[in-house]
Parts: sequence; C-alpha cells; structure tokens
Amino acid sequence: MSKYMLLFQGTSFSSKSPKEIQVLRDYLYCINTDGMIERVVAPEDADYQFLLDTYQGTDSFHRLEEGQYFMPGFVDLHVHAPQWAQSGTALDIPLYDWLNTYTFPLESKFSDLEFAQKVYDDVVSTLLANGTTTALYFATVHKEASLLLAQICASKGQRGLVGKVVMDDPEQNPDYYRDADTSTALADTEEFIIAVKELAKATKQGVYPVVTPRFIPSCTDEGLKGLGELAAKYDTYVQSHCSESDWAHGYVKDRFQKNDAFALHDFGLLRDKSVMAHCNFLDDPDAELFADTGTAIAHCPISNAYFANSVIPVARFHAKNVEIGLGSDLSGGFSPSLFDNIRQAVMSSRMLEDGVNTSLPAEARGVPESRITVHEAFYLATAGGGESLSLPIGRIQENYAWDVQVIDTRLPSAKLPIFDEFEDIQDIFQKIMYLARPEHIREVWVQGEKVHTR
Amino acid sequence: MSKYMLLFQGTSFSSKSPKEIQVLRDYLYCINTDGMIERVVAPEDADYQFLLDTYQGTDSFHRLEEGQYFMPGFVDLHVHAPQWAQSGTALDIPLYDWLNTYTFPLESKFSDLEFAQKVYDDVVSTLLANGTTTALYFATVHKEASLLLAQICASKGQRGLVGKVVMDDPEQNPDYYRDADTSTALADTEEFIIAVKELAKATKQGVYPVVTPRFIPSCTDEGLKGLGELAAKYDTYVQSHCSESDWAHGYVKDRFQKNDAFALHDFGLLRDKSVMAHCNFLDDPDAELFADTGTAIAHCPISNAYFANSVIPVARFHAKNVEIGLGSDLSGGFSPSLFDNIRQAVMSSRMLEDGVNTSLPAEARGVPESRITVHEAFYLATAGGGESLSLPIGRIQENYAWDVQVIDTRLPSAKLPIFDEFEDIQDIFQKIMYLARPEHIREVWVQGEKVHTR
Ligand SMILES: [Zn+2]
Ligand SMILES: [Zn+2]
Repeated sequence: MSKYMLLFQGTSFSSKSPKEIQVLRDYLYCINTDGMIERVVAPEDADYQFLLDTYQGTDSFHRLEEGQYFMPGFVDLHVHAPQWAQSGTALDIPLYDWLNTYTFPLESKFSDLEFAQKVYDDVVSTLLANGTTTALYFATVHKEASLLLAQICASKGQRGLVGKVVMDDPEQNPDYYRDADTSTALADTEEFIIAVKELAKATKQGVYPVVTPRFIPSCTDEGLKGLGELAAKYDTYVQSHCSESDWAHGYVKDRFQKNDAFALHDFGLLRDKSVMAHCNFLDDPDAELFADTGTAIAHCPISNAYFANSVIPVARFHAKNVEIGLGSDLSGGFSPSLFDNIRQAVMSSRMLEDGVNTSLPAEARGVPESRITVHEAFYLATAGGGESLSLPIGRIQENYAWDVQVIDTRLPSAKLPIFDEFEDIQDIFQKIMYLARPEHIREVWVQGEKVHTR
Repeated sequence: MSKYMLLFQGTSFSSKSPKEIQVLRDYLYCINTDGMIERVVAPEDADYQFLLDTYQGTDSFHRLEEGQYFMPGFVDLHVHAPQWAQSGTALDIPLYDWLNTYTFPLESKFSDLEFAQKVYDDVVSTLLANGTTTALYFATVHKEASLLLAQICASKGQRGLVGKVVMDDPEQNPDYYRDADTSTALADTEEFIIAVKELAKATKQGVYPVVTPRFIPSCTDEGLKGLGELAAKYDTYVQSHCSESDWAHGYVKDRFQKNDAFALHDFGLLRDKSVMAHCNFLDDPDAELFADTGTAIAHCPISNAYFANSVIPVARFHAKNVEIGLGSDLSGGFSPSLFDNIRQAVMSSRMLEDGVNTSLPAEARGVPESRITVHEAFYLATAGGGESLSLPIGRIQENYAWDVQVIDTRLPSAKLPIFDEFEDIQDIFQKIMYLARPEHIREVWVQGEKVHTR
C-alpha cells in the first residue's frame, strides 16, 4: 500500500546554484525506506492529490504548519569535538599559547573515556540541535575515545565523519599529548579505520573514518607518508589544516620549500575525499591543485577572525572551481551554529572587499569583488558541504538524503519579524538566514529519521 | 520592617574597568523603592546573615539558582525601531538603494498608527527579551507614531530614548517620506519633546525625547540650526549619524569644507548628551572634539560590515577618552542582540589589527594594537553605554539602577559547555559572552521591575 516510508508536505528552501535559491512551495517530498528523497511532487503534478489522499491521516504523513519551512540540514566540515568543552574561552591569546595552555591539556583528558562520553554526547546533541546533520570531526590522538565519538554519532543519528588525530613528532608536540611514535600512530589509525568501517555496516545514515594528520607541523615526514598510504589503501576521507595563518604557512615553506598544498599533495593527502580547513593563504597554483585533485576547503569564518590573520578570498577560489563548504571550527570558532558562520562568512567577505583601515583611501583599502551573498553562504553550509564530501546531501531534491531542519518563523517566544502575511518568500528566506537561532529549529531529520525535536 | 523593596542573592558580572570584570560571588543586592541599588553586600559583611534572615521567605527575596548569573542589562545606543520589520533583508545591496528601495518606503508606512503599534510592540518586546534594558531609538518623521513608540517603551518598562526623525530637505528626500518643510519639522520636534517630557513624569524607569536629524545629507542648514537650538532650550539628548561611510563622510566635506563632526558642532549638535552612530571616519581632531564636548560614539559592528566600508578604530578612540557604547543599528545590522554585537566588535577589531588581504605581507596588512577583548566589548554594551548617556546604568554597583538580566547556563534545551563544576569563573563569563542566546536570558529587570521572563 504505502510505497514510501514518509510523505512530507510543505515549502522548502534549497540551493539551485551557488547564487540562487530554489523555493518549492507546498510540495510533497516522498521518502523511501533508505531515507532518500525518491520524489519531489509539485502541487500541479498529476498525482499530487492522489498521494495526499493516500497518506493523509497515516503515521507516515507530516505537514508543516503555517510559517514553517524545510531547509537542508547543515554540513559542518570542521569541528574539533573535544574542544567543545572550552568553546568561547581564551580567544584573546595567540594560537601557540591557546594550543599549549588550553587546547592540548584539554584534549589530553580524552584518554578518560568517561569524560569523553560526557563531552562527545553533548557536542553531538548540540550540533544536531543547531541543524547540523553531517559533521566532519577531529577527535583526539586517542584511538578508543575517537571510536567512541563515531559510536555516539551513529547512535544519535548524525552522519559523522571522524578522525583519530595524528601528532607523531616528539619534537613538535608535548610529551603528555602525542602519539607514542610514528608506527604506533599509523597502527592506531589503521585499527581505527577498520573499526569505524565495521560500525558503518549497522549505521543507516553513515559513519566514516577520516585520516587526520593534525597539521604538517605536528607530524614527521614518515607519519605523513604513512597516512597518505592508509588513505589510498582504505579509500578514506582525509582532513587536516592547510595554510591557515602567516605562521603555519611560513612553517611549511621553511620545511619543504613549497606551499602547504603541494607538500600535502606529495604525501598523497590531497584526494577527492580530502577536506582542508581554512586555506586562507593558498596562492593560485595551490587553488588549482585543489581543484584538480578534488580537494575541498572548509571555510571557518568565525575562527579565522581570531587565528587566520586574514580573510580567505572565497569568491576567488570559488571562481577557480574549488569545492568549498563551511566549518564551525569548534573551538577556534566559538559557535556551534552554522547560521552564525553563514552570517560571518558574508560579513567577512564584505570586509575583505571594502577593506578595514580608514586611514587608507577607499580604492587602496580592500579587494574588489570579494563579497559573497547570503545565498552563497547558505550554499556553502549545505550543498557546498555535500559536494566537498561527495555525498548526496545538502539539497532538497530527488536522490538526496532526507536530511532537513524544520524552521518555525512564528515561534511565540521568538517570532521572526514578519508582519505581512504576503511577504515575499525571498525576504522570508533572508530573515531566516540572518535571524534564526536554535530555538527556531523545531525538528531535525537525518536519512529519514527524526533525530531532534523541541 | 523591610527597608528595601527587593533583595537579590547571587553572583554577578559587571565591568570594573574597560578591561576588567568585577565578579561578586553570592552577594546580596538591596534595591530601594526607586529601583536603585542601595547596597551591595558581601558574604563576609557583618549584616549579610541578618539581611538574609530578614528577607528570606518573603516576596521581596529572590535567590539565583545554581548556574545562574546576574549581568547588567544592555544599553543599545542605536536602533531604528521601524526597520525591525525588514531586519535581515536586502543587505546585499548598496546603502543608497537600500534606503530608497526598502527603508524609506517602509518608514513611510508608520503614518499608519495601527501598523506602527504592531511593529513597535514587537521590537520593544524583542529587545527586552534580548536583555536590552535601555535603547536609544530613531523612530520615523511622524510625530504621532514616534510618541507611540515612547509610550510603548514606557508601558513595557524599557528605558526608551526616542527621536522623531527630521528629514526636512525636499531636494534630498523623497516626496512621500520627509517633513513637509523646515518649520513644520521644528514645530513637530518641539511638540514631540514636550509630549515625551510629559509622559516621563509618570514613567518610573525614564523615557526621554531625543533631537534627531537623520544625518546631515537629509537636512537643511536651517533645520540643523533649529534642532541645535531645541536641544539647548530643552536640554535634550541628540542623535544622528556621523562619518559612517566614504560617501557620507565625503558628502559633508563637499558641502561644508569640513568633517561631519565639526559641521554638527557648528549647529550645536555635539553636546554631553549627544550620541553619534558609527563615526568610523573620524580623524584625530574629530575624536578630540567628541571627547571635549562629551559626545559619544554608538559603535555598530554588524551594520558596519555592510555599510561602513571599514572597521572603526575603537581602541584608538577609547585611548582618546571618547565615550563609546554599542548599537545594534537595526536594520542596517540584522541582529537585535547586543551579545551578537559584542562578538562582532571583538572579531572586527581583530580583523582591523591583522588586516584582511592575504596578498599583502603581514606587516603591511593591518593596523597594530587595534584589537579589543571580549571584556572591553562587554564594557561597551553595558557601562560604556551608560556613560554615553550620562545615566546611572550599565553596572551592578551602589547608586546604579537595578537593570539586570539573569543568565541561565544550565538550561536543559541549551546548556552551555561547562563540564567542570569548579570551572574558573572568568571562563564561565567568557562562555556566556560567546555562547548565550535569548533563550538563556531567563529574566530581565529594569529599575527594579521585572519586565521579561521565560
Ligand atoms: Zn581546526
Ligand atoms: Zn542608523
């Protein structure tokens, strides 16, 4: 009788292209038992009424209320899950002190699985409550705790891509927090990959192991080479940090006499399934290498304001066909919300375009044509993230996963400022982009399963 | 028996200085019938226990729960109340189009008092729910609707400073939205001042009329001169926009062969009770004129990312003893939350310090020593706002108004990431600064009256 597992009715926003929003008004969304969108049916389609009649009144049918909208769930391409415990603190100090005084001592505590459970439970739930249906996580160097994070994603229904972090150079990392040695780092990574692939077999929405050198400065050449080989052997995702700041960019240049991008490539770490965080200082050949290898950028605009010494020229890299998505970069970025990062991506791009220093004349202050619109930032947070991961996510269209958030614009405690019931739908979209907060996210679905409600 | 109207017990955060936070752990706050903090009593003080014994169990006594904190209510120095209806929209277009295509048509609708009531009710409630206990508002050119906004502030318990906007130059403003002529503009302003002063007599928390030339480009010389005279005659607040963008700054220079600051001063518009929005392009003599006249800056960091072509050098102006507070600038800024503006003030200041353009070498990219800390941004949103208005608000200390927000860090739906019950109190403060949202604001009090709860 019921061909579909679920039938939804309502208006949705999704990216048609980086610059354009597709609005499906009062459509039906037919979800199959795999949690995929099998059909999207317009009100004028022949069997719209028949489908409605068939499903209405059954448990499979869900209709949005007035003022509610579907949007794709967010894809967060860069999260340090353990750092959630220190989000918002110590952002007034330099990166080196931040790592050594706060971050490494905190991450070292994840050898304690009880502590790990507490923080990882909370960060996954918090990201779901913020509409993030897929997240690419750095865990810590600890194999067990990293696997625990993957298990928590699996059980809470979030699509998690998880990396055990590798920091194998004893010269560059504190003794209390690093891999014992290079061969242990590689063996642990391999065991981790195998364990997560095993876990994936029973995980509907998917869970994926990620080869994760912290960044070049933490790793030996041998470690980096071994990780590249593991990524190829198991065809895994790869993540790291690339050309984030003046210091990091300069460090790699000194060590290898080439830019971060080419050094990573030499170790086999730039692949179609690679996502590199930040990448502010890529030059044109670096960007072309990213485009050629299918490597994506995780743009983390909030974090960049603190640690990247610059604004990444997103518009320029997008024009070179580099895949780009958004990342919260918890806790270099303080906010678990990609809404906040969408807003900051727009603002930062405008600050790059106009420049910042009032003592310079306008024409010498900024970098023309750098701005992105809120539509483009939304694209980065959804469809761009999906493309970066080569997964059918981040769009509301046929053959994509039913990963959605339901936004309520008429919440009594926090009604959005919509005073005209015939307000232009594009304006409503923009009001959601700029004003929605977690409390407006009433439901979150991943792969056809409801994973959050409030 | 009860000497005080209210007695509160709990831990509070307030600015000790622009760079330092005062933490009062488990203090008592004694509020008199005027809604002023008459005493702040430390646990080690002699009569702490006696006061507790006297008030505990009475309706006058309020104790915070574990994980809750008092902070001063926010002082928002720049809000266009009517523009709440378009918050978040059309931020991708230039200022001129934004004003003429969206803003002026919207503001012209406030001749309709029913529409005005709907929007003004909502914006005042929304700002209270965001912890804003005092707001300095631009209304519209309409005398009646502007008075309605003052009445709504009065009845909802917000400390409102409200201006009827003057745009009297027929050459510079659209026919459908401006003052009929200069003498009408001045007569309406005078009637408005008198009416608000009358309303103030019955308003515990205070409501104040504000002389409000929109900005120099909207006004005739005669209008500006007349407004300066009215401000002196009635000793009122004055607000306008000053040196916001390249265009605005250049316009005034062309018209008067001097900077905005000195032109405003010539018309008697820079006074101790003056607050000028933005002020990004003040030069050193301008800033000194501000300091000499007691004129304050309303820094609007979110709005500036869209319309100011630059980042204001806040640290430089603060060092010159210019009074500075924060403004949301609805709807040039999209967010009604000063928390969001605190965060952006910090981020923008760091982007000014480090610069934005990766193709420049680090040493040529930014403006050294421009960063402000989150403590300084909090100061701007609270104590700095109070100083800007010369009112005893924005601090939790004796002889200040009991204007506070109660922040709950343990809200089940949005617990802040505090995993250690002995976490450093300074870290908790920073987590609140970076992660609190309206739902964490459980109560808001103005002048000893509870005006919001959730
Ligand atoms: Zn990172
Ligand atoms: Zn303004």
